[in-house]
Amino acid sequence: MNKIFDKLNPWLTKAYALGAALILFEWDNETEAPEAASELTARAIEVLSNEYYETIINRDVKKLLNQLSEEKNLTDKERAILKDLKKQYESMEPIPPEEYQSYQGLIARAPSIWAKAKAADDYNIFAPTLKEIINYQKKFIKYRLKAGKKKITPYDLLLDDYEEGFTTKELDVFFEKLKKEIVPLIQAVNAKKDKINKEYNYRDYPVELQKTFNRKLAEHVGFDFDRGVIKESVHPFTTNLHNKDVRITTAYREHNLESALFSTIHESGHALYEMHIADELTTTPAGTGTSMGMHEGQSRLFENNLGRSRAFWVPLFQNLKDTFPEQLADIDLDTFILGINKSSPSLIRTEADELTYSLHILIRYEIEKMIFEKDVDIDQLPKIWSKKYEEYLGVKPEKDSEGILQDIHWACGNFGYFPSYALGTAIAAQIYAHLKQVMPLDEHLKNGNFQPINDYLKDHIHRYGKTKTTNEILIDMMGEGFNSQYYIDYLKEKFEKLYNDL
Amino acid sequence: MNKIFDKLNPWLTKAYALGAALILFEWDNETEAPEAASELTARAIEVLSNEYYETIINRDVKKLLNQLSEEKNLTDKERAILKDLKKQYESMEPIPPEEYQSYQGLIARAPSIWAKAKAADDYNIFAPTLKEIINYQKKFIKYRLKAGKKKITPYDLLLDDYEEGFTTKELDVFFEKLKKEIVPLIQAVNAKKDKINKEYNYRDYPVELQKTFNRKLAEHVGFDFDRGVIKESVHPFTTNLHNKDVRITTAYREHNLESALFSTIHESGHALYEMHIADELTTTPAGTGTSMGMHEGQSRLFENNLGRSRAFWVPLFQNLKDTFPEQLADIDLDTFILGINKSSPSLIRTEADELTYSLHILIRYEIEKMIFEKDVDIDQLPKIWSKKYEEYLGVKPEKDSEGILQDIHWACGNFGYFPSYALGTAIAAQIYAHLKQVMPLDEHLKNGNFQPINDYLKDHIHRYGKTKTTNEILIDMMGEGFNSQYYIDYLKEKFEKLYNDL
Repeated sequence: MNKIFDKLNPWLTKAYALGAALILFEWDNETEAPEAASELTARAIEVLSNEYYETIINRDVKKLLNQLSEEKNLTDKERAILKDLKKQYESMEPIPPEEYQSYQGLIARAPSIWAKAKAADDYNIFAPTLKEIINYQKKFIKYRLKAGKKKITPYDLLLDDYEEGFTTKELDVFFEKLKKEIVPLIQAVNAKKDKINKEYNYRDYPVELQKTFNRKLAEHVGFDFDRGVIKESVHPFTTNLHNKDVRITTAYREHNLESALFSTIHESGHALYEMHIADELTTTPAGTGTSMGMHEGQSRLFENNLGRSRAFWVPLFQNLKDTFPEQLADIDLDTFILGINKSSPSLIRTEADELTYSLHILIRYEIEKMIFEKDVDIDQLPKIWSKKYEEYLGVKPEKDSEGILQDIHWACGNFGYFPSYALGTAIAAQIYAHLKQVMPLDEHLKNGNFQPINDYLKDHIHRYGKTKTTNEILIDMMGEGFNSQYYIDYLKEKFEKLYNDL
Repeated sequence: MNKIFDKLNPWLTKAYALGAALILFEWDNETEAPEAASELTARAIEVLSNEYYETIINRDVKKLLNQLSEEKNLTDKERAILKDLKKQYESMEPIPPEEYQSYQGLIARAPSIWAKAKAADDYNIFAPTLKEIINYQKKFIKYRLKAGKKKITPYDLLLDDYEEGFTTKELDVFFEKLKKEIVPLIQAVNAKKDKINKEYNYRDYPVELQKTFNRKLAEHVGFDFDRGVIKESVHPFTTNLHNKDVRITTAYREHNLESALFSTIHESGHALYEMHIADELTTTPAGTGTSMGMHEGQSRLFENNLGRSRAFWVPLFQNLKDTFPEQLADIDLDTFILGINKSSPSLIRTEADELTYSLHILIRYEIEKMIFEKDVDIDQLPKIWSKKYEEYLGVKPEKDSEGILQDIHWACGNFGYFPSYALGTAIAAQIYAHLKQVMPLDEHLKNGNFQPINDYLKDHIHRYGKTKTTNEILIDMMGEGFNSQYYIDYLKEKFEKLYNDL
């Protein structure tokens, strides 16, 4: 261990401890804390957050980071930690603390204003807050660009916060290809969508029985309950304290069987990534998934490429029928597989099917670009939103809650975040293509044998944490960096076959 | 607000936040964290504990406390906070930090050694560790007595840590009276114990149904689920982040109906105390129950004095029968009331009935006194233990696990803690006598109307937190400080009547 790192370690350990506490408070808040607790508990969280911030951003740590930047013989782990901390510095330090604090106050209030606007179906309630958030973001971008060495565009700076190495240059190419190839496919598929009847999915599925099956489902794909917890929350998510404590939630809907099933598989994909981080990295800043996109690459791989395949359900479907013998009495495996792969353009991103999903992201990407690069009039966003939905998906929101107000992300200040969902979905298709090359994937799925799949993902992706970038991982694993063609090919092949056969 | 207090507040706020995090980690650890998590999570907890310690014990805070000691116009709240912090200083500061740290290390390891010894039924496995703990305690007592102003005995110093104002002088009188009056009563009752058949209690009570009923039971006595959570753990306990987040656990046994019932009522009594602390005190060091004994006074009041009365079960028993229609088909209310009041000397404290309970504490009290005042040979403790059980309760442990190894307390270094259980039980009887004076208590219980009971306890006991001592609360409420006669009278009246009628 490097000597300067020895001096940095107490700071890192303290940051880990405070970070773990904050994660636990968030988990508890979403899954267990009583209604009335939030206000007083928020005070504790605020103190711990400030403490965390000051543990990372302070003169002593800065000095150590500067010294470390001169060091040549750092290990991969040390280099990854240094890089992560420097990135945090570069994004936080140029911003005057008092402006950062009032922004934090705004961001703390904004989600409830957004929720109110959504409930009232009225964008105008949220628009002034959204403008404030965007103004802060633009100011912060200015500070950061001024302090930084690289010459990049404002939106590229935001993108870089979530997905290093993926700028508008790469994303424009990606989304243009998507538009060109997938929009016509969606139209073709849409013409035949009524040939698939999935009425069975909306029958009565008691939540307790769903819970039992979903637990088995998580276990089936490799979720290790010795190191993990599965629980309920309004919006499903994955969180972790370290690689031996990884937690997922599922939201159950009594009249929608699929909803919880694919949410559980999705979150299990995230969870496996975190469970497989190397012991020597966990609890350090390098001990988590390398990027949003690579994380989504794992969850989407499990949810869609594996989870919606026929082979995946071969060992599970009878068990599902046994859990719901009456509800699924007249449904066979083939009908079920058609059902879970039915594509139908819709308004809500989180409920979108595999084929149309990335078009929802495309729309958000184009709008975010307009906000940060063209100073679009924020009051015009609902109109722009509607027009794009009509153009790309052929559907038009009647209400703001089904349109521009559907996602919480902007209310949390998360701009530049959405593209990672589409990137991740494309990365998943690329990994899927590779897995089929290196192992008898369908055989393993049919046998319910996830061990070789998880071992491979662990060895080539998961264990590295942040010591490799997304592209480095892909190149080392398959000799090629990110390539969206795999995703296009996957969708075309799968959906053309599926719908041609109808 | 006092100006010096203004300077102290940031420290208190930070201590509150860190304390809340530590409480949440403990709750999570007991109720939810996955098996494999503990080692890595313990590292975070250790850092936060040290951070907490340094937030309270440091030069700046010490200086402020010294300044505050000179102040005359402090509010009750400020005085209580000052007193609590000074007490923490007086107990921690005289101990050399390196000795304190190695003691902490010992205490972290000891419970698992104790558990091993208990599982192996072999006191000799635990004895060396117990000796080490006692040696540290004796050393620490010496440091503290040397630094302190008061001339008190070593064991009195320990007692004072848990129960201010109750020294061996008071406790000797209390326990002697108990021995004289209760031991003969136990013998008389024991002779008739076979006349009560409570076989029904050990039938098959599915845990899920128990959970449903116990939740209702907690609600019945006033537990507010908007501010609270009920969950499962191996050993039941109550914890709280503040007065709007109070949590209890229950342990369910499929073949013992009573076990969970009275544990839920007991923990609800603790929880109500914490839920009723005044808003202006919660999140400060004065914002919790005033003492162990007063806390146990609430839980025991609910569990025994109220919870084992006939009136308590009048509005509940039919509901219990509806929950377990087959199991309780042949049981009526009177049989049930006899069953839950059956007394029978036994070996295990936590399973002891209301009449014999305090004798278990008496034995521990006498042994702790021998340890700290007479330097008894630690190897002889199992023999002494057995002799005392035989003498006071007429039963003799066959195994160490049923004897000296049954409780975890000593392995955690908690000496002087046990007496609070008996004191609390006596305080409960005193409060019970008072409640009967000031309100139609039985009427309220029969109507399932806990509002007036809880309002009274809140107004006269709970809301004050630590701004009054145990005795101050009793005197202000009923014009009389602690008086164990209420307890003796209660037991005699109740059990003589119960068993004379048989």
